[in-house]
Amino acid sequence: MNRQAINFQQKLALFAEPWQPRVVAEMNDYQFKLVRLAGDFVWHAHADTDEVFIVLEGRLRIDFRDGAVELAAGEMFVVPKGVEHKPFADGEAKVLLVEPRGVVNTGDAASERTARNDVWV
Amino acid sequence: MNRQAINFQQKLALFAEPWQPRVVAEMNDYQFKLVRLAGDFVWHAHADTDEVFIVLEGRLRIDFRDGAVELAAGEMFVVPKGVEHKPFADGEAKVLLVEPRGVVNTGDAASERTARNDVWV
Repeated sequence: MNRQAINFQQKLALFAEPWQPRVVAEMNDYQFKLVRLAGDFVWHAHADTDEVFIVLEGRLRIDFRDGAVELAAGEMFVVPKGVEHKPFADGEAKVLLVEPRGVVNTGDAASERTARNDVWV
Repeated sequence: MNRQAINFQQKLALFAEPWQPRVVAEMNDYQFKLVRLAGDFVWHAHADTDEVFIVLEGRLRIDFRDGAVELAAGEMFVVPKGVEHKPFADGEAKVLLVEPRGVVNTGDAASERTARNDVWV
Protein backbone atom coordinates (compact mmCIF):
# COMPACT_ATOMS: atom_id res chain seq x y z
CA MET A 1 0.00 0.00 0.00
CA ASN A 2 1.23 3.45 -0.97
CA ARG A 3 1.64 5.54 2.21
CA GLN A 4 1.80 8.92 0.53
CA ALA A 5 -0.90 11.54 1.00
CA ILE A 6 -2.21 12.97 -2.26
CA ASN A 7 -1.62 16.73 -2.21
CA PHE A 8 -3.97 18.58 -4.56
CA GLN A 9 -1.76 21.65 -5.10
CA GLN A 10 1.31 19.52 -5.78
CA LYS A 11 -0.63 17.47 -8.32
CA LEU A 12 -2.16 20.56 -9.97
CA ALA A 13 1.30 22.06 -10.37
CA LEU A 14 2.18 19.17 -12.70
CA PHE A 15 -0.14 20.25 -15.53
CA ALA A 16 -1.45 23.52 -16.92
CA GLU A 17 -3.94 22.64 -19.68
CA PRO A 18 -7.58 23.38 -18.92
CA TRP A 19 -10.35 20.81 -19.43
CA GLN A 20 -7.93 17.87 -19.20
CA PRO A 21 -8.86 15.82 -16.12
CA ARG A 22 -6.04 13.95 -14.41
CA VAL A 23 -6.74 10.98 -12.16
CA VAL A 24 -5.14 11.22 -8.72
CA ALA A 25 -6.83 8.34 -6.87
CA GLU A 26 -9.22 5.43 -7.15
CA MET A 27 -11.73 4.22 -4.56
CA ASN A 28 -13.38 0.94 -5.53
CA ASP A 29 -14.46 1.60 -9.15
CA TYR A 30 -14.58 5.38 -8.76
CA GLN A 31 -11.93 7.90 -9.72
CA PHE A 32 -10.92 11.23 -8.20
CA LYS A 33 -9.73 13.63 -10.92
CA LEU A 34 -8.20 17.09 -10.74
CA VAL A 35 -9.05 19.50 -13.54
CA ARG A 36 -8.48 23.14 -14.38
CA LEU A 37 -11.58 24.78 -15.82
CA ALA A 38 -11.34 28.05 -17.76
CA GLY A 39 -14.04 29.58 -19.91
CA ASP A 40 -16.89 27.64 -21.48
CA PHE A 41 -17.29 23.90 -21.73
CA VAL A 42 -19.78 22.09 -23.99
CA TRP A 43 -23.32 21.07 -23.15
CA HIS A 44 -23.41 17.39 -22.28
CA ALA A 45 -24.95 14.79 -20.01
CA HIS A 46 -23.84 11.50 -18.46
CA ALA A 47 -26.63 9.00 -19.02
CA ASP A 48 -25.43 6.45 -16.47
CA THR A 49 -23.97 8.35 -13.55
CA ASP A 50 -24.14 11.35 -11.27
CA GLU A 51 -21.05 13.57 -11.31
CA VAL A 52 -19.48 15.40 -8.35
CA PHE A 53 -17.75 18.78 -8.61
CA ILE A 54 -15.72 20.00 -5.60
CA VAL A 55 -14.20 23.46 -6.07
CA LEU A 56 -10.70 23.79 -4.60
CA GLU A 57 -9.86 27.25 -5.90
CA GLY A 58 -11.64 29.90 -7.98
CA ARG A 59 -15.29 30.01 -8.94
CA LEU A 60 -17.34 27.68 -11.11
CA ARG A 61 -20.79 28.09 -12.60
CA ILE A 62 -22.68 25.04 -13.83
CA ASP A 63 -25.39 25.96 -16.31
CA PHE A 64 -28.50 23.85 -16.76
CA ARG A 65 -31.17 24.24 -19.43
CA ASP A 66 -33.38 25.91 -16.84
CA GLY A 67 -30.99 27.60 -14.41
CA ALA A 68 -27.51 27.51 -12.94
CA VAL A 69 -25.59 26.89 -9.74
CA GLU A 70 -22.60 28.96 -8.60
CA LEU A 71 -19.78 27.30 -6.67
CA ALA A 72 -16.92 28.88 -4.75
CA ALA A 73 -13.90 27.21 -3.16
CA GLY A 74 -15.00 24.84 -0.40
CA GLU A 75 -18.28 24.01 -2.11
CA MET A 76 -19.52 20.94 -3.96
CA PHE A 77 -22.40 20.01 -6.24
CA VAL A 78 -23.78 16.72 -7.57
CA VAL A 79 -25.05 16.84 -11.16
CA PRO A 80 -27.67 14.09 -11.40
CA LYS A 81 -27.29 11.52 -14.13
CA GLY A 82 -28.96 12.38 -17.40
CA VAL A 83 -29.13 16.11 -16.68
CA GLU A 84 -27.63 18.34 -19.37
CA HIS A 85 -25.06 20.74 -17.98
CA LYS A 86 -22.31 23.11 -19.09
CA PRO A 87 -19.54 24.12 -16.70
CA PHE A 88 -18.19 27.67 -17.02
CA ALA A 89 -15.37 29.43 -15.20
CA ASP A 90 -14.63 33.16 -15.42
CA GLY A 91 -10.89 32.98 -14.92
CA GLU A 92 -9.63 29.58 -13.78
CA ALA A 93 -11.23 27.18 -11.35
CA LYS A 94 -9.37 24.22 -9.86
CA VAL A 95 -11.81 21.39 -9.34
CA LEU A 96 -11.88 17.85 -7.94
CA LEU A 97 -14.22 15.56 -9.89
CA VAL A 98 -15.56 12.26 -8.57
CA GLU A 99 -17.14 9.78 -10.96
CA PRO A 100 -16.98 6.12 -11.93
CA ARG A 101 -13.92 4.90 -13.78
CA GLY A 102 -14.47 5.19 -17.54
CA VAL A 103 -16.57 8.36 -17.59
CA VAL A 104 -15.61 10.65 -20.49
CA ASN A 105 -15.53 14.38 -19.74
CA THR A 106 -17.90 15.36 -22.54
CA GLY A 107 -20.38 12.56 -21.85
CA ASP A 108 -22.74 12.17 -24.82
CA ALA A 109 -21.27 15.17 -26.70
CA ALA A 110 -17.91 14.26 -28.27
CA SER A 111 -16.14 17.44 -29.40
CA GLU A 112 -12.77 19.16 -29.47
CA ARG A 113 -13.16 19.33 -25.69
CA THR A 114 -13.21 15.55 -25.33
CA ALA A 115 -10.16 14.64 -23.28
CA ARG A 116 -8.19 11.43 -23.22
CA ASN A 117 -9.61 9.38 -20.38
CA ASP A 118 -7.85 7.71 -17.46
CA VAL A 119 -4.72 9.89 -17.57
CA TRP A 120 -3.03 9.90 -14.16
CA VAL A 121 -0.87 12.58 -12.64
CA MET B 1 -33.17 19.18 -8.76
CA ASN B 2 -31.78 21.14 -5.82
CA ARG B 3 -29.76 24.07 -7.19
CA GLN B 4 -27.90 24.90 -3.99
CA ALA B 5 -24.15 24.47 -3.70
CA ILE B 6 -23.10 22.48 -0.64
CA ASN B 7 -20.83 24.69 1.46
CA PHE B 8 -18.56 22.64 3.73
CA GLN B 9 -17.98 25.36 6.35
CA GLN B 10 -21.68 26.18 6.58
CA LYS B 11 -22.49 22.51 7.06
CA LEU B 12 -19.72 22.00 9.64
CA ALA B 13 -21.04 24.95 11.64
CA LEU B 14 -24.25 22.98 12.22
CA PHE B 15 -22.70 20.35 14.48
CA ALA B 16 -19.85 20.22 17.00
CA GLU B 17 -19.56 16.59 18.16
CA PRO B 18 -16.44 14.77 16.99
CA TRP B 19 -16.58 11.32 15.35
CA GLN B 20 -20.21 11.79 14.22
CA PRO B 21 -20.24 11.79 10.40
CA ARG B 22 -22.99 13.84 8.75
CA VAL B 23 -24.06 13.11 5.18
CA VAL B 24 -24.07 16.18 2.92
CA ALA B 25 -24.53 14.61 -0.52
CA GLU B 26 -25.09 11.40 -2.45
CA MET B 27 -23.63 10.43 -5.82
CA ASN B 28 -25.13 7.21 -7.18
CA ASP B 29 -24.88 4.84 -4.18
CA TYR B 30 -22.02 6.73 -2.53
CA GLN B 31 -22.21 9.29 0.25
CA PHE B 32 -20.13 12.37 1.05
CA LYS B 33 -19.91 12.90 4.81
CA LEU B 34 -18.41 15.69 6.89
CA VAL B 35 -16.86 14.74 10.20
CA ARG B 36 -14.87 16.40 12.95
CA LEU B 37 -12.04 14.20 14.20
CA ALA B 38 -10.37 14.87 17.54
CA GLY B 39 -8.05 12.54 19.41
CA ASP B 40 -7.95 8.81 18.94
CA PHE B 41 -10.41 6.63 17.07
CA VAL B 42 -10.63 2.82 17.32
CA TRP B 43 -8.81 0.26 15.20
CA HIS B 44 -11.15 -1.06 12.52
CA ALA B 45 -11.39 -2.16 8.91
CA HIS B 46 -14.06 -2.09 6.22
CA ALA B 47 -14.14 -5.54 4.63
CA ASP B 48 -16.09 -4.54 1.52
CA THR B 49 -14.95 -1.07 0.54
CA ASP B 50 -12.15 1.42 0.22
CA GLU B 51 -12.62 4.63 2.20
CA VAL B 52 -11.58 8.15 1.19
CA PHE B 53 -10.39 10.83 3.62
CA ILE B 54 -10.09 14.42 2.34
CA VAL B 55 -8.77 16.88 4.94
CA LEU B 56 -10.46 20.29 4.80
CA GLU B 57 -8.86 21.81 7.91
CA GLY B 58 -6.38 20.69 10.53
CA ARG B 59 -4.13 17.65 10.43
CA LEU B 60 -4.98 13.96 10.44
CA ARG B 61 -2.82 10.91 10.98
CA ILE B 62 -4.05 7.50 9.89
CA ASP B 63 -2.24 4.71 11.70
CA PHE B 64 -1.81 1.28 10.15
CA ARG B 65 -0.47 -1.83 11.85
CA ASP B 66 2.85 -1.26 10.06
CA GLY B 67 3.07 2.49 9.58
CA ALA B 68 1.10 5.70 9.24
CA VAL B 69 0.22 8.46 6.81
CA GLU B 70 0.02 12.15 7.75
CA LEU B 71 -2.53 14.39 6.02
CA ALA B 72 -2.79 18.18 6.03
CA ALA B 73 -5.57 20.37 4.62
CA GLY B 74 -5.81 19.94 0.85
CA GLU B 75 -4.68 16.32 0.97
CA MET B 76 -6.52 13.03 0.54
CA PHE B 77 -5.87 9.36 1.15
CA VAL B 78 -7.61 6.14 0.15
CA VAL B 79 -7.62 3.41 2.80
CA PRO B 80 -7.91 0.13 0.88
CA LYS B 81 -10.68 -2.26 1.83
CA GLY B 82 -9.80 -4.75 4.50
CA VAL B 83 -6.87 -2.74 5.85
CA GLU B 84 -6.95 -2.06 9.59
CA HIS B 85 -6.60 1.62 10.38
CA LYS B 86 -7.00 4.09 13.23
CA PRO B 87 -7.48 7.80 12.54
CA PHE B 88 -5.94 10.24 15.01
CA ALA B 89 -6.08 14.03 15.19
CA ASP B 90 -3.98 16.16 17.51
CA GLY B 91 -6.45 19.00 17.96
CA GLU B 92 -9.39 18.91 15.58
CA ALA B 93 -9.42 17.94 11.93
CA LYS B 94 -12.36 18.65 9.63
CA VAL B 95 -12.64 15.87 7.10
CA LEU B 96 -14.74 14.91 4.08
CA LEU B 97 -15.32 11.16 3.85
CA VAL B 98 -16.44 9.35 0.70
CA GLU B 99 -17.77 5.81 0.93
CA PRO B 100 -20.72 3.70 -0.17
CA ARG B 101 -24.07 4.33 1.47
CA GLY B 102 -24.45 2.10 4.52
CA VAL B 103 -20.84 2.05 5.70
CA VAL B 104 -20.59 2.28 9.49
CA ASN B 105 -17.81 4.47 10.87
CA THR B 106 -16.26 1.77 13.05
CA GLY B 107 -16.45 -0.94 10.38
CA ASP B 108 -15.93 -4.34 11.99
CA ALA B 109 -15.24 -2.90 15.48
CA ALA B 110 -18.49 -1.76 17.12
CA SER B 111 -17.68 0.38 20.17
CA GLU B 112 -18.70 3.53 21.99
CA ARG B 113 -17.36 5.34 18.93
CA THR B 114 -19.92 3.72 16.62
CA ALA B 115 -22.06 6.54 15.24
CA ARG B 116 -25.62 6.46 14.02
CA ASN B 117 -25.42 6.00 10.27
CA ASP B 118 -27.01 8.01 7.46
CA VAL B 119 -27.54 11.18 9.50
CA TRP B 120 -27.79 14.18 7.18
CA VAL B 121 -26.91 17.78 7.91
